[in-house]
Amino acid sequence: MKPTKIVTIGGGTGSFTLLKGLKNFNIHITAIVSMADDGGSTGRLRDELGVLPPGDVRQCLVALSKQSKKVRDLFNYRFDSGALEGHNFGNIFLSALEKISGGFSKGVEEAIKILNVQGNVVPVTDNDVNLFIKLKNGKEINGEDEINHSFDIEKIGIQKIFLNPPAKANKSALTAIKEADMIVIGPGNHYCSIVPNFLVKGVSRAICNSKARVVYNFNLVNKKGHTENFDLDDYVDSINGFLGEKRIDFVTFNTKKPSDLLIEKYKSNKELLIKFDPNKVKNRNFKVVKSDLLSRNKTKLNNSDKLSSLRTLIRHDSDRLAKLLIMLLELDEYKSLVKEIV
Amino acid sequence: MKPTKIVTIGGGTGSFTLLKGLKNFNIHITAIVSMADDGGSTGRLRDELGVLPPGDVRQCLVALSKQSKKVRDLFNYRFDSGALEGHNFGNIFLSALEKISGGFSKGVEEAIKILNVQGNVVPVTDNDVNLFIKLKNGKEINGEDEINHSFDIEKIGIQKIFLNPPAKANKSALTAIKEADMIVIGPGNHYCSIVPNFLVKGVSRAICNSKARVVYNFNLVNKKGHTENFDLDDYVDSINGFLGEKRIDFVTFNTKKPSDLLIEKYKSNKELLIKFDPNKVKNRNFKVVKSDLLSRNKTKLNNSDKLSSLRTLIRHDSDRLAKLLIMLLELDEYKSLVKEIV
Repeated sequence: MKPTKIVTIGGGTGSFTLLKGLKNFNIHITAIVSMADDGGSTGRLRDELGVLPPGDVRQCLVALSKQSKKVRDLFNYRFDSGALEGHNFGNIFLSALEKISGGFSKGVEEAIKILNVQGNVVPVTDNDVNLFIKLKNGKEINGEDEINHSFDIEKIGIQKIFLNPPAKANKSALTAIKEADMIVIGPGNHYCSIVPNFLVKGVSRAICNSKARVVYNFNLVNKKGHTENFDLDDYVDSINGFLGEKRIDFVTFNTKKPSDLLIEKYKSNKELLIKFDPNKVKNRNFKVVKSDLLSRNKTKLNNSDKLSSLRTLIRHDSDRLAKLLIMLLELDEYKSLVKEIV
Repeated sequence: MKPTKIVTIGGGTGSFTLLKGLKNFNIHITAIVSMADDGGSTGRLRDELGVLPPGDVRQCLVALSKQSKKVRDLFNYRFDSGALEGHNFGNIFLSALEKISGGFSKGVEEAIKILNVQGNVVPVTDNDVNLFIKLKNGKEINGEDEINHSFDIEKIGIQKIFLNPPAKANKSALTAIKEADMIVIGPGNHYCSIVPNFLVKGVSRAICNSKARVVYNFNLVNKKGHTENFDLDDYVDSINGFLGEKRIDFVTFNTKKPSDLLIEKYKSNKELLIKFDPNKVKNRNFKVVKSDLLSRNKTKLNNSDKLSSLRTLIRHDSDRLAKLLIMLLELDEYKSLVKEIV
């Protein structure tokens, strides 16, 4: 029997969390990764070396690596002084591999061998693209990093979000989508990690045409100034809009409330828990799978990455999320995890 | 039967050439590596990250790696733009490993696993040292890089060459020397790559006390302003001086003349072929093994390392040198390589 094939679509820490859980199951994973990142270490490497963005791909490689913890720590290590300050070792590694391999995807293939990766990691495109948003007031926001730090996007409204230059999907990404038993979208930053994948030509159509079950993993909190007032149906509508049809079959929704202290902390940054009103819409054409998906792990502080503590306080539990997805592939043994499917 | 144990002592390109040849034989190799380098990429990493010098260790690791050529190329890859310009990927790799491993030697142990190294690579010391030369006119030259680029050393004469702070040898280096069947010194830059090993406390005594056959591989050319007027006996005297007794059993000496064009090119940089006058000394207590050791390979130009072309034009042939050394371990099949033992 061929192993079940799961394709994940995303980028950033969300993909890392998801893949870390999925790799413990006997399934074939292809992680399709957004290529629009231009901030931080990744942005500097793009500017200075003319390489494609390594950061999101690195996170997926590390999540799926079967190498020792030491090696995985190495690839996430961030230098804290000198000219290398802020650079992530794994990013430098991927940039050097791109240089000697004659292309980013070829470099990633080498990295997959070196890191003994279970499954495959595929950049959604090999084109050197940037993300742009044109707001309804005519203002244009250039680049993912700038978009990520713009907090008037929701208020003014998006007229158009697009990649420049237009990007063509990697063939291996389209093949993986076509052959998938399940396609898992998110979790991840909506406009900066998830949506850029659908802006690559060929991706949305391939998802719509595939016979896979399509699952959308909700984020746990909204993003300030981007999706601050989105509820569950708004997210699904947005994703389906980019896909071109109502293709989402399931959404996973966390039911476990974080501590009041944590909620307050996030509230002060205008990051509120995502709401779901079962009565808002009648006859939804997707199922909402409610389950406890909240991580209880103490936040692991990475001293050389100041952001990591903030990013990960309210987060998915890798194992719970993976088990729920495996259950949605109709493995009965995990059904007890689901509180309710509405 | 336990495999024959060879210990090499050196640093830099010379060690790389030597080890690349030796790794094809069924012997156990321990490469002991000088830790005084403070120039180029290595020097910047030392300054900015507070790490120990990775460059020489990297070359030995790559030479002994059983990973694919692509991986070995990666570790020697030098960035050619941006903040990473001039940095060698392998150096950055070792520095990051040192940071997450809590020590340079521990990092090297991890690198040995990742690079699937045949044998062992041991930094001669884990102390953070610098090389100093006090000249006879009282002038002090601080640091290996500065020494390497000082060309009045031979003319003025050396009063003292020393490491600061004084360095203690790595235990595993001393153990390897003690257990060796053969100890191979050089080839390599005399004052900058070879001698610094003997300045580390315990190394010279361990060599003198070992039962190993001690072989000294001559360089092919003299170094301008350092050993410009040295002949074979001068080098042996110098090394034996640092060892504390006349411990060298064999020296290997190249008999094959490079092309006149090459010789002229080197001459213009005051790098002359090393001379050997059999009649200069009577009753030498070491054997001179004459053999064709010259590389015929076209110089491989590494575009991102401008120096490599100059450094490697007149160089040892890895395989010829290794075979000669194996022969000196009394493997009869290679005896035809030797022209003469005097």
